[in-house]
Amino acid sequence: SGSLQDLLVNTLAATQDDAPPLDAVASALAAAGVLLQERGDFARRRQAIISANVELRERELIKLAALAEALAETLRNRGVPAAVASLTAEAGIAVFRVAFETWVVDPTGRDLPRLITESLDQLKAVTAGN
Amino acid sequence: SGSLQDLLVNTLAATQDDAPPLDAVASALAAAGVLLQERGDFARRRQAIISANVELRERELIKLAALAEALAETLRNRGVPAAVASLTAEAGIAVFRVAFETWVVDPTGRDLPRLITESLDQLKAVTAGN
Repeated sequence: SGSLQDLLVNTLAATQDDAPPLDAVASALAAAGVLLQERGDFARRRQAIISANVELRERELIKLAALAEALAETLRNRGVPAAVASLTAEAGIAVFRVAFETWVVDPTGRDLPRLITESLDQLKAVTAGN
Repeated sequence: SGSLQDLLVNTLAATQDDAPPLDAVASALAAAGVLLQERGDFARRRQAIISANVELRERELIKLAALAEALAETLRNRGVPAAVASLTAEAGIAVFRVAFETWVVDPTGRDLPRLITESLDQLKAVTAGN
């Protein structure tokens, strides 16, 4: 997933500097969602292998943490304070994971970019106390 | 951190059923914050050892993921839909981590429960687009 990380970081770095941090992260996640959606079957087979193996699941967690740290660093480079950058990046990865986990088990369901948007809206509702 | 997980899960399970999920998670985090604040020096020494070692950092990530899953399961048992439960739990763990990382490097700074509240408020501001 090196290419996924590059895509996320480069998309994030390219968003307008005055975009709110979470919107900027959401743009990057949407780009990743389009890529994975195109790779559909491959992404699903890969995930089935990972899910069946404890060590691979742990590797995946570590990769996602590295992805969050890369996003946080990109936000800090845009002038976002460190704590806000970390929270935004981790929230973004959580949004992505929940959407991905829904998508990966339901090939006939909604597209991944759509699920990412829905997941983001759910997080916003949760933090607004709804 | 078995006892920390028990404390979090039991506090979460004991909050009022009609509390919004993130508020319920925040109560549990506050309880964990009080415990760790009491253990102050021990918690800081433990973290210094973990931070200096790649494998221990990875173990810690896996523990935090297990903690998030335990919180999500507790929320599901309270009737919270699966996706919302996962998002709330992961957001809560992100809030906790950011607060903990600030606290652990600054013994003379604010108390951990206070930092957790501030971190939660930052997340709310981030997701509200501020």
